Amino acid sequence: MTRLEHDLLGDREVPSDAYYGIHTLRATENFPITGIPLSSHPDLVSALAAVKQAAAQTNAGLGLLPRREADAIARACEEIRAGALRDQFVVDVIQGGAGTSSNMNANEVVANRALELLGHARGSYEHLHPLEHVNMSQSTNDVYPTAIKAGLQTALTRLRASMHELAAAFAVKSTEFADVLKVGRTQLQDAVPMTLGQEIATFALMIDEDSQRLGEAATLISEINLGGTAIGTGLNAHHEYAWRVREHLAAITGIEVTTASDLIEATQDVGAFVQLSGVLKRTAVKLSKICNDLRLLSSGPRAGFGEITLPPVQAGSSIMPGKVNPVIPEVVNQIAFRVIGNDLTVTMAAEGGQLQLNAFEPIIAHSLFETIELLTRGCAVLRERCVVGIGANIEHLKNSVDASIGVVTALNPHIGYTAATAIAADALATGRTVAALVLERGLLSREQLDDVLRPENLTRPLVP
Amino acid sequence: MTRLEHDLLGDREVPSDAYYGIHTLRATENFPITGIPLSSHPDLVSALAAVKQAAAQTNAGLGLLPRREADAIARACEEIRAGALRDQFVVDVIQGGAGTSSNMNANEVVANRALELLGHARGSYEHLHPLEHVNMSQSTNDVYPTAIKAGLQTALTRLRASMHELAAAFAVKSTEFADVLKVGRTQLQDAVPMTLGQEIATFALMIDEDSQRLGEAATLISEINLGGTAIGTGLNAHHEYAWRVREHLAAITGIEVTTASDLIEATQDVGAFVQLSGVLKRTAVKLSKICNDLRLLSSGPRAGFGEITLPPVQAGSSIMPGKVNPVIPEVVNQIAFRVIGNDLTVTMAAEGGQLQLNAFEPIIAHSLFETIELLTRGCAVLRERCVVGIGANIEHLKNSVDASIGVVTALNPHIGYTAATAIAADALATGRTVAALVLERGLLSREQLDDVLRPENLTRPLVP
Amino acid sequence: MTRLEHDLLGDREVPSDAYYGIHTLRATENFPITGIPLSSHPDLVSALAAVKQAAAQTNAGLGLLPRREADAIARACEEIRAGALRDQFVVDVIQGGAGTSSNMNANEVVANRALELLGHARGSYEHLHPLEHVNMSQSTNDVYPTAIKAGLQTALTRLRASMHELAAAFAVKSTEFADVLKVGRTQLQDAVPMTLGQEIATFALMIDEDSQRLGEAATLISEINLGGTAIGTGLNAHHEYAWRVREHLAAITGIEVTTASDLIEATQDVGAFVQLSGVLKRTAVKLSKICNDLRLLSSGPRAGFGEITLPPVQAGSSIMPGKVNPVIPEVVNQIAFRVIGNDLTVTMAAEGGQLQLNAFEPIIAHSLFETIELLTRGCAVLRERCVVGIGANIEHLKNSVDASIGVVTALNPHIGYTAATAIAADALATGRTVAALVLERGLLSREQLDDVLRPENLTRPLVP
Amino acid sequence: MTRLEHDLLGDREVPSDAYYGIHTLRATENFPITGIPLSSHPDLVSALAAVKQAAAQTNAGLGLLPRREADAIARACEEIRAGALRDQFVVDVIQGGAGTSSNMNANEVVANRALELLGHARGSYEHLHPLEHVNMSQSTNDVYPTAIKAGLQTALTRLRASMHELAAAFAVKSTEFADVLKVGRTQLQDAVPMTLGQEIATFALMIDEDSQRLGEAATLISEINLGGTAIGTGLNAHHEYAWRVREHLAAITGIEVTTASDLIEATQDVGAFVQLSGVLKRTAVKLSKICNDLRLLSSGPRAGFGEITLPPVQAGSSIMPGKVNPVIPEVVNQIAFRVIGNDLTVTMAAEGGQLQLNAFEPIIAHSLFETIELLTRGCAVLRERCVVGIGANIEHLKNSVDASIGVVTALNPHIGYTAATAIAADALATGRTVAALVLERGLLSREQLDDVLRPENLTRPLVP
Repeated sequence: MTRLEHDLLGDREVPSDAYYGIHTLRATENFPITGIPLSSHPDLVSALAAVKQAAAQTNAGLGLLPRREADAIARACEEIRAGALRDQFVVDVIQGGAGTSSNMNANEVVANRALELLGHARGSYEHLHPLEHVNMSQSTNDVYPTAIKAGLQTALTRLRASMHELAAAFAVKSTEFADVLKVGRTQLQDAVPMTLGQEIATFALMIDEDSQRLGEAATLISEINLGGTAIGTGLNAHHEYAWRVREHLAAITGIEVTTASDLIEATQDVGAFVQLSGVLKRTAVKLSKICNDLRLLSSGPRAGFGEITLPPVQAGSSIMPGKVNPVIPEVVNQIAFRVIGNDLTVTMAAEGGQLQLNAFEPIIAHSLFETIELLTRGCAVLRERCVVGIGANIEHLKNSVDASIGVVTALNPHIGYTAATAIAADALATGRTVAALVLERGLLSREQLDDVLRPENLTRPLVP
Repeated sequence: MTRLEHDLLGDREVPSDAYYGIHTLRATENFPITGIPLSSHPDLVSALAAVKQAAAQTNAGLGLLPRREADAIARACEEIRAGALRDQFVVDVIQGGAGTSSNMNANEVVANRALELLGHARGSYEHLHPLEHVNMSQSTNDVYPTAIKAGLQTALTRLRASMHELAAAFAVKSTEFADVLKVGRTQLQDAVPMTLGQEIATFALMIDEDSQRLGEAATLISEINLGGTAIGTGLNAHHEYAWRVREHLAAITGIEVTTASDLIEATQDVGAFVQLSGVLKRTAVKLSKICNDLRLLSSGPRAGFGEITLPPVQAGSSIMPGKVNPVIPEVVNQIAFRVIGNDLTVTMAAEGGQLQLNAFEPIIAHSLFETIELLTRGCAVLRERCVVGIGANIEHLKNSVDASIGVVTALNPHIGYTAATAIAADALATGRTVAALVLERGLLSREQLDDVLRPENLTRPLVP
Repeated sequence: MTRLEHDLLGDREVPSDAYYGIHTLRATENFPITGIPLSSHPDLVSALAAVKQAAAQTNAGLGLLPRREADAIARACEEIRAGALRDQFVVDVIQGGAGTSSNMNANEVVANRALELLGHARGSYEHLHPLEHVNMSQSTNDVYPTAIKAGLQTALTRLRASMHELAAAFAVKSTEFADVLKVGRTQLQDAVPMTLGQEIATFALMIDEDSQRLGEAATLISEINLGGTAIGTGLNAHHEYAWRVREHLAAITGIEVTTASDLIEATQDVGAFVQLSGVLKRTAVKLSKICNDLRLLSSGPRAGFGEITLPPVQAGSSIMPGKVNPVIPEVVNQIAFRVIGNDLTVTMAAEGGQLQLNAFEPIIAHSLFETIELLTRGCAVLRERCVVGIGANIEHLKNSVDASIGVVTALNPHIGYTAATAIAADALATGRTVAALVLERGLLSREQLDDVLRPENLTRPLVP
Repeated sequence: MTRLEHDLLGDREVPSDAYYGIHTLRATENFPITGIPLSSHPDLVSALAAVKQAAAQTNAGLGLLPRREADAIARACEEIRAGALRDQFVVDVIQGGAGTSSNMNANEVVANRALELLGHARGSYEHLHPLEHVNMSQSTNDVYPTAIKAGLQTALTRLRASMHELAAAFAVKSTEFADVLKVGRTQLQDAVPMTLGQEIATFALMIDEDSQRLGEAATLISEINLGGTAIGTGLNAHHEYAWRVREHLAAITGIEVTTASDLIEATQDVGAFVQLSGVLKRTAVKLSKICNDLRLLSSGPRAGFGEITLPPVQAGSSIMPGKVNPVIPEVVNQIAFRVIGNDLTVTMAAEGGQLQLNAFEPIIAHSLFETIELLTRGCAVLRERCVVGIGANIEHLKNSVDASIGVVTALNPHIGYTAATAIAADALATGRTVAALVLERGLLSREQLDDVLRPENLTRPLVP
């Protein structure tokens, strides 16, 4: 069963039960690219619905749209935001047309659901039209970037929560190992002592700091261009539309959006997306570094660093009995590589923008939503299946400090750099410990040495 | 309904009707990353099955595996290669563990289907074991990269066919417009004349050339490390296994695979993937450049270049009546940006390999298969929905040559560079044509001028 | 003439007139990489001297260093900061060792100049030692990143000034062309009208906005880890050293640096560099987009957009008389591509950091300083040799609006979307103007039409 | 002292002693970008001279240029190719204009030197003109890419020689350590045994393989477009010019260049540069991976892997006595990051090409020449200052194999996978060796065990 719809290119049969219409239908045919539908980015779908709702309420308030039709549109949008009709958002996430197809998809689904609510059949656009009414005072070029920004805000909030939990899990481990002395390393060479707690605390701090940076980047994308219509001049929009629709959108979404001071600039500028992508890349780089460290510290069990253990989550090898691998950090590394690749995709798409619009916003949106989703899941899995179960090989760590040559650094202020260098060279050549050599040469008494080598003196600045 | 399975970490209930087993189950829990299952890369699944089949036949030939069990494994693999049981390949495309989970997934599905064929219940591994029998003489570390390479060969063949058809479509257009004279451009400034046919012919040539380069890159990935087992030393594999299994694999797949001369090097080296990715990036760059040109040449309709028209495939704007946009080239541009991003992902994953193995092969595989699929679809859609319908605004093109100042270059050999420069400056200042000025100044007769400006003289080297 | 110096590896002859010493000498031999010396980043050299000066003053204040030696060090540092001895900073900008060679180079030059000031011969380190005294309470691992950050602040200030001047130049042009009506474009297709002033104003706004973002990124790199010594635990540094040295450094440089709350984290974390690089990339993307637009708008002179003219700065062709090319925007595009490449280099270097230190800070520093310098020069050259001389082809622009089909959008509220669509289709088919067709069909009177098409109504929101 | 020169923009004073002229002078003013002159790429300067020489000889042969002038040009070019006048190639390596300024610089230097050889004063272009004679039958658009390609060939030959020597150095070490047994690792976890010789041999193999790939990429850039003039149509060039000039160029340079079958395509296509860059990136990735491994294997000396030692080349720390760092691998890692960044720069520049020309070839050329130079130096420094001095901690390596749990894999065929797994678990829990447990449980006799664990059986396939 189909219904007939019409556009500039002619007539097409649309499935009767479809809430989308002819524009969406054509778009699905034009863009058989990834097979991933728009609905796979639920935050974007919700945000599109929120924009449509805000526009309808604004148009009604300005007397441009009858209240009854506006209410039907608003109700349809609320249903969508609550999760309904998601399977109707079918256009491909990679699409030409600067997001027009996503906007058309939203216009049509909202219109047809509103028609139903008004007691009309789907497709009877003479009562409520996807373009004339649902899209009133709007253009894809202000609707689509606004929806992307609102949707990203929601997604970022979720990511930051996931990061916060991960940081907290590291913090717990940091406390657990606060007194476990170990050898710090620079350039993979043994350096001076620290505690395992100090080492792990940095992971918590890094993630929390990156979350703050993401929060700042989120404010950059709170600036919208709604009201600019086609190119930002606001052609055909009422001169009060922009500030009114912003108020409605903020009220509907609970997100503090602001209207850009220059809508022409805001319509073509995707700089805030580039910057957000850069901060997400920063986060990915940090997570990858942390996972590299976790894999390094847990290398072994015997021919590696062997300092910490990660909880086993699956058998590691189809040929080597008993082998367990750091598969969770490894998957997070790979997420990071994907995110870094996505940042490049965003960069190229941004650079390719021309004149009054960036035609490549769909791939920017897809890349950013994917990136955020991957990082959110990566943080969760890293916390649940790895960090919470980290163990320490305390005895081994303690022995490594005793055997370490790097502790000689702490003797500098007491025996001088020259004598310290000689001790270091001797220790390296003979395999003996620094402590043994210092005592043997009578450079310090046992008491003095013990004092210098007390953990609290080795792991913080000098209090004379 | 479930059955109980066991591994190093303990017991787990597996759905009774599942062909996968406990290792796969754990992997799905460990890697809830993209939601995209391994089955979304059908060429990789088929290739995994081909490797398992080749191994079983080899092991049987060496007397290591009973013929009946080997035949059951082989038949299960053939069913999978024919398209069966695809929904059982459920592990996430982004996974930790260097592909172990993908290999385990294959081992388990093959084992359980083979058990059925042998008249046993799924899970009765005492009769046929995923690791002991299906994975015999193998390690993930030789199976997985071998399967990736074989799968990529298949995917590349499809891509090259799609490129070939696209190039052919451009070639048809090139012939159609062989005599349409137009202004060539360098640095976006009017240069010297050429034909539209010449311009479009370059697109065909570029694509064909890149396809040749891809063919060469494909041979680079025909070198496999099957038989190297865990780290390439071939530990536990029969010394005749490597060359025998290669023969079986070649026979099964029809792909000319060769065994690397040093399996240790081959097991850890992902250089061929990096290079293939680089050539795919080259292809993406070229497609993007072509689409940029198509968008530029069709810009307008009135305030742009307006030289060619692209077939309209959907309405372009929700606010501007009658606007049609170059949405097909735009989507191909975006595919290119994604491919370039994927190349970076592959690069980072490759650089992150350590010692005897690259743990990040899953993201390399996912990126490459995605890239090839996107390019394949992009070429198809560009051909079908854009190139075949390109039209030329012949009158406008002709006028632009007549009005062009660049034709003055052709006068150099006849009136000298200095006089030509003066004509050019005068033409620019007055808005008059080069031809009018040349005739007015009596520098050439009408006949001489006509001869110089004949299309065949303007668009090819000088035949004195 | 040489003097003999000694280190752990033995003795070496150093040129007598050299201010650098044995460590620097070895580094020049170890790193014959780019041939570009450290002195090519003068902001970094100055900042290294500032850190050495601050440390000497702090050590003196804590009673760890005699006042006379401290003063000599401080005076030597001031001379360097004023531009002296730059040719002595000879280590390669790409170097192994996490910046140790840069720090050693600074230690040695400062020590030898201080020795001279104290009346001693260069190399007589028994009086003042590069490591014992100049490097007192310091490690490369806190000195080097601190100096990078302070140096970047200075460089960024210069870049932002250059951006500000560029933005101002665009703003002047924007005012000049405030009333020049033209066709706006989306997706390279004619859209609705705007003024050339509006179009160019966006360039000014974009650059100013990016400058603000750079200012914010600059505050991120004001956080230093000075006092953390080797790995951030502050081993061997006086517990009051960190806050005292910060005060001195701030006083010396005039830069508001802050000390990180956790020095272990701060010592290994290069996230602020990644983020700064990302914002610089954003700036590059924007500049590239602007230059793409300038090249597009000035394409022609006859077979292109031909809307604006760029001042000719050199002959464009060795074969085509009279050809002038947009060489200035082209060089800025290439700067942008380099900057984007540098961002990737920074990203990879950041990801490669391990445990308590990032060994790859030298390439991070080199990339960032190069990026900032290139952008600074690019903005200057774009302003001086291009933007200030932009001209408008006013008549051509006006005609393009009259001929434009896109103006039909403005008729929507007056004649309805359906009638507007019909007019658009007819205009496209017949080549006639929208105005002519509207009048012919009697849809609007001449007065009504003139009112709708008045520039102020076409280029801003509707005031009913 | 100056002389007056003239171009389209007017008159300018050029220093009397300069061999370059007004076009070069303007270019230096227009592009004050990097401060790095064209002469820093000597292979490119030589290649430009070779092209000019070939063109002069061809033009003379076709009767277009008097023999005496052609000979003077050829002699000037030979002098330049021998190293003369390098300081006259002063235009910036990053320049707008698609290489026009580089071509003009070459034209002017060659012309003025040829004038001298003919007994005329520099600047007396009435006798021999940079454009009319030196540039005869040429355009920047065919000269410049041809010169880049010829220059890259020379540079690549040098790189490949450097790689070959590095591979040979690894091969020597591989032989030296052929019998040193050690633990192989996958995913940083202990896997099965191998020899250190096998491990290091892979480095030699990888580098040799990449060198072969570079050789293949070099053939891709042997295809030139000389004779295509402005846009590849060959306008104003004699129809025999293209094949004649190719022969001359091949004879002069000794490089097997071929003329592209379609010069229009060849003039705009930079695909071969993208691909070459990709293969150079592959090489960088491999070198980085090798250096990561070297740093990992030499980590310690006590709290790391401690398997190999790298020769100390400088003191590692200004604070930690006796510390020595892997600075040579570290600098090669950074070279790799730069090369990978350069590849992105090349990619973006390639994607930005439009219509009949890529205006961004200068940054492509600069990136590729820099990349090749950095890799060449990196390979040399890695060989000389690191690889040749690698030592092995043989005792430690032997002990690690004895203690390794991974050897249990070799027991699979003898005691079964299940028993092997139990042994592995027990070994991990108790800290005892696999051998001790096997003997204790009487699973194998001492003789059997010794046979299984013989190095030759552990490090190669099974010979039953």
